[in-house]
Amino acid sequence: MAEHELRQLIEAADRAITAEDFDGLMEFYADDATLVVKPGLNATGKTQIRKAFVAIAAHFKNALKVRQGRMQVIEGADNTALVLMETLLDVEGQAEPIVRRATYVFRKSEAGRWLCAVDNSYGTSLLDG
Amino acid sequence: MAEHELRQLIEAADRAITAEDFDGLMEFYADDATLVVKPGLNATGKTQIRKAFVAIAAHFKNALKVRQGRMQVIEGADNTALVLMETLLDVEGQAEPIVRRATYVFRKSEAGRWLCAVDNSYGTSLLDG
Repeated sequence: MAEHELRQLIEAADRAITAEDFDGLMEFYADDATLVVKPGLNATGKTQIRKAFVAIAAHFKNALKVRQGRMQVIEGADNTALVLMETLLDVEGQAEPIVRRATYVFRKSEAGRWLCAVDNSYGTSLLDG
Repeated sequence: MAEHELRQLIEAADRAITAEDFDGLMEFYADDATLVVKPGLNATGKTQIRKAFVAIAAHFKNALKVRQGRMQVIEGADNTALVLMETLLDVEGQAEPIVRRATYVFRKSEAGRWLCAVDNSYGTSLLDG
């Protein structure tokens, strides 16, 4: 099966996170997108989301590297897509990466551009809280 | 926190599954919604989704009961919502329910009505395949 265009998009977004290119990163989000910063704390809109990524980078001492593993895309009604993706976080001082199973909602604009509407890198583990 | 309206909607849909009211069940889906029937097999559009539910009911010998556990709703851009939900399936001949962590994408119509755009009851376990 050909690689879904959303995989390339998410890989590019994660390269922007690793490079701390937060202005570039915001291009991947819809204006009123929601990011789950951590369980119980959401950021909504690009201003809040950008601030959250700056704080996350500082939390990981500016040494966060993000990689992707397996991925499934399920396109649905109204130009939406649910993306399930293994995300590997390499952080300073840890030999093994943190592995998460992220869940994203994307929506394709009328211009045919996919934008992230919901970014929940915690996946269904949010239900553990 | 008040119960999200999507919880009531999903509970009503699951009551329709238990009652095998498939016409009623279809009211919860957007016209071009996608249902993950099983890993690797998707149904798209109400005609295919209805057929899949008839087959699922037969597979469980018309004795499937669906209940909900914990739930998280993350509303995002463009009137979308990501729903994470524990789903308990009571099936004939099994003392313990099958527990899944479902992931749904809903979208609110211009009339203010939530419709299911992606129904993936397998959640991130689809990545195991």
